[in-house]
Amino acid sequence: MKTYLDCIPCFFRQVLEGARVVKASPKQQKQIIDEFARKIPEISLKVYPSEIARIGYALLKKISPSGDPYKDIKQKSNRIALRMLGKLRNKVNHSQDRLLTALELAIAGNIIDFGVKNNLNVKMELKKIIAEENKNIPKKSIFHYLEFRRVLKEAKNILYLADNAGEVVFDRILVEEIKKEYPNKNIYYAVKAKPVINDALFEDAKACGIDNSARVISNGTDAPGTVLALCSKEFKRIYKNADMVISKGQGNFESLSQEKRPIFFLFMVKCPVVAKETGCKLGNIVLFYNLKKNGTA
Amino acid sequence: MKTYLDCIPCFFRQVLEGARVVKASPKQQKQIIDEFARKIPEISLKVYPSEIARIGYALLKKISPSGDPYKDIKQKSNRIALRMLGKLRNKVNHSQDRLLTALELAIAGNIIDFGVKNNLNVKMELKKIIAEENKNIPKKSIFHYLEFRRVLKEAKNILYLADNAGEVVFDRILVEEIKKEYPNKNIYYAVKAKPVINDALFEDAKACGIDNSARVISNGTDAPGTVLALCSKEFKRIYKNADMVISKGQGNFESLSQEKRPIFFLFMVKCPVVAKETGCKLGNIVLFYNLKKNGTA
Repeated sequence: MKTYLDCIPCFFRQVLEGARVVKASPKQQKQIIDEFARKIPEISLKVYPSEIARIGYALLKKISPSGDPYKDIKQKSNRIALRMLGKLRNKVNHSQDRLLTALELAIAGNIIDFGVKNNLNVKMELKKIIAEENKNIPKKSIFHYLEFRRVLKEAKNILYLADNAGEVVFDRILVEEIKKEYPNKNIYYAVKAKPVINDALFEDAKACGIDNSARVISNGTDAPGTVLALCSKEFKRIYKNADMVISKGQGNFESLSQEKRPIFFLFMVKCPVVAKETGCKLGNIVLFYNLKKNGTA
Repeated sequence: MKTYLDCIPCFFRQVLEGARVVKASPKQQKQIIDEFARKIPEISLKVYPSEIARIGYALLKKISPSGDPYKDIKQKSNRIALRMLGKLRNKVNHSQDRLLTALELAIAGNIIDFGVKNNLNVKMELKKIIAEENKNIPKKSIFHYLEFRRVLKEAKNILYLADNAGEVVFDRILVEEIKKEYPNKNIYYAVKAKPVINDALFEDAKACGIDNSARVISNGTDAPGTVLALCSKEFKRIYKNADMVISKGQGNFESLSQEKRPIFFLFMVKCPVVAKETGCKLGNIVLFYNLKKNGTA
């Protein structure tokens, strides 16, 4: 997906919220905004939104002592999500279609996204999601579940593209469910190489315990989403060999939607531009198979 | 009210929406965004939001052949609002407190604001407002009505600061009601000197027929809101002599909220920054008297 002009105001909002997360003083916040503004005229809209967001977050890292401004937030998300593991498993165990429930939970876990809504009360939102009634899960719009089942059955090598820390626990539920049904599948779980927003790193994958069921790999970059041109050779090799890609979050959708690979995009629609691009509504949960042909479902 | 950093993403959104109103090509839209971005580092946040918005709208005028990009929209708003005049009057005639109803309608008319929501369906929104039931009028939060009545009773010279075209019809309802109760009050109705967004000009005041009950004057500027430093001497003289100022819309609130004059701010809360500044919620209708002292109501 290309970058829309409508993304520009949103980049400024993200950079500003990020500046506050790194505890920049009001003066520093203005400086970061100014520096980002100076870059706008140099930016082509032919690049993916993730690439522009990366430029903004690079400015934040400059004034973050640790170089990982969202570290505390990520660790907190991991802890909160881990405490829910039992309930999530319980929900799968008591469902009629285990895989479907695991899928829904994995997508719902995508609500943990500080790039979009900084002051998100993760605990409250997740409690809603795993409440007994499904009332609170926003309606599905695109949901290629039969294709997911079909492609999964045949796939040998599955590449699962992570999105946010904390959310990894929800991914773990889905990965464990796949492994339970198909113990011989190879599952690679790809995280970022270096910090960007609250995207999951190797340490988050490990903290959330997904490393017991999937082989955790790095994609070699610090861009939000998966910008293939920036990814490592090793990652691209695994990507090309995968018979099935499970891609989490809007960032991965934005940077891979034009690819001709068997990718399933699992995400919650969080912005009007992606809503327009997909024909969905804000808050919809989406399972989109990019190779779906009409009538094959 | 000073400009907040949170206003910056919103300025970009307004500039982009404005570029679309003037039918700029996508390439021109990007150029306008780039030009506005280049100005950001030069801008101090000590100025009013209206002053920065003015810079953005000045860029739009450059590519608008008429120099008045919102002319059609303004004329349409005037026509739609004028067709409602009978119903608005009817609503006042059938109310228990005529002045209160006229006030509420004047504030509700503030929904006509293309700076905030470009694709606003004015007709639909206004129909909601004048529906028999008041259900659809968002709840009032700050509403200094007793002070309004008290100050109005004593005032000789009233300065009414206009906001948007179309909305003038709603202002007319209030002005006529004041004139009905107090035929001897001098009422000045101040519009912009030159086009900016859909702000009312002299021609709009006339088209909406408010010139029969108030003396229409220009504030001498093309800044949204009322930036006194930019206003004409003649306007400032009238402003200083006024015993009561009725100020419509967020723009006027943003640029006059720190003034020590008897100003009643009538507006609908349309952005999170003003919501925070006033302690109100988005969509609230506000009647705020800036000289109100506790316990005098």
